[in-house]
Amino acid sequence: MAEVVHMIDSEVFLAFSTYATIVVLKMMLMSFVTSYFRLTKQVFSNLEDTTLVKTTEDRKRLVRVDPDVERVRRCHLNDLENIVPFVVIGFLYALTGPDLYTALLHFRVFVGSRFVHTVAYVMALPQPTRGLTFGVGLFTTFSMAYRVLTTALFL
Amino acid sequence: MAEVVHMIDSEVFLAFSTYATIVVLKMMLMSFVTSYFRLTKQVFSNLEDTTLVKTTEDRKRLVRVDPDVERVRRCHLNDLENIVPFVVIGFLYALTGPDLYTALLHFRVFVGSRFVHTVAYVMALPQPTRGLTFGVGLFTTFSMAYRVLTTALFL
Amino acid sequence: MAEVVHMIDSEVFLAFSTYATIVVLKMMLMSFVTSYFRLTKQVFSNLEDTTLVKTTEDRKRLVRVDPDVERVRRCHLNDLENIVPFVVIGFLYALTGPDLYTALLHFRVFVGSRFVHTVAYVMALPQPTRGLTFGVGLFTTFSMAYRVLTTALFL
Repeated sequence: MAEVVHMIDSEVFLAFSTYATIVVLKMMLMSFVTSYFRLTKQVFSNLEDTTLVKTTEDRKRLVRVDPDVERVRRCHLNDLENIVPFVVIGFLYALTGPDLYTALLHFRVFVGSRFVHTVAYVMALPQPTRGLTFGVGLFTTFSMAYRVLTTALFL
Repeated sequence: MAEVVHMIDSEVFLAFSTYATIVVLKMMLMSFVTSYFRLTKQVFSNLEDTTLVKTTEDRKRLVRVDPDVERVRRCHLNDLENIVPFVVIGFLYALTGPDLYTALLHFRVFVGSRFVHTVAYVMALPQPTRGLTFGVGLFTTFSMAYRVLTTALFL
Repeated sequence: MAEVVHMIDSEVFLAFSTYATIVVLKMMLMSFVTSYFRLTKQVFSNLEDTTLVKTTEDRKRLVRVDPDVERVRRCHLNDLENIVPFVVIGFLYALTGPDLYTALLHFRVFVGSRFVHTVAYVMALPQPTRGLTFGVGLFTTFSMAYRVLTTALFL
């Protein structure tokens, strides 16, 4: 981690910026998927939201839980639980001055695994598709964390 | 993204630091709002927490779900889903060397929209107040992501 | 925040990198704890996941809610709500050029408090153990936010 200053406008950092932005945008996309299911299936969490589809009575009935909406919400939460660690550890990893090829491999595998994970989750593909993509993402992040801790350890 | 090193102690980066800290503190505030509702309404998720308000029996009854507490929790989760992307993308955006005025506009609009969003959510204001503030926040983040990807793209 | 460029490969930044990585890895560990409880107690959120433990009928019965699994999931969410602010504010704090001893104190107290918090939550230790560790973590983050805002304020 000695030459951090020069690393920051390096190709590794540009690559990190690109992949981190893409995967965070993918995570934000889940809000739209949730909204889409809520509006088309007329399922809401808040009474005030029901006016978006209905103005008459019986609005209270639309405040309910739907398995498809819950599935998308779990996928979104799983993204938060995994993409946030990738961004934090990937940023520190990029500052340790890794080889460009190795860094790109980590970023591409992680981002690819999360896109497949989302498709597997939302479309309820048979296991172990989702489990594997989840594991691949975790492993990539652990591999970067290993380099950060072996390069920058200061307890 | 060529002059990243010089950008870091620029006014844009100071502005990012200020607004990111403020909006993250606002997000942390949700924990206190949740605790406030839990203690005043005596609604808990964990049996061991009920000793905070009661030492006698019937503590099991206090482990239940309350619509007001759930509303605050959804607001907190929505903050996580939106403020985390703002922090990540806003940080990379600040490193692309944007115009100070434009950067301040993005940061102020985002942070303002999230404060109004929280008020609209917790007080259950009629829609589309909350929907609009949510959309404004998303749009601001997308606008910054667009600049990051057009400036730093490295796939 | 004037000498940011020189701070980045300072000991404070190395210490931040180390503690941030450790506490984010701890947060990721919660996924394994959840999986462990799901597989041993045979409790799932998604029908397709039940094939991981059973191939015959009656798989629908395994899609249910279990108090122990929900406890671990709340602990994981609480980590997200608290560790993410620590990482964001701690990073900006590290850039303000704090005294190494003071910075290490903040990072160690926070990370220690979150480890004890997890044990207290998962093992359902009597209150106020969990409440105190939660408070200590919050206080540490607020203390760093105070320094960021007093050093870097730019509205």
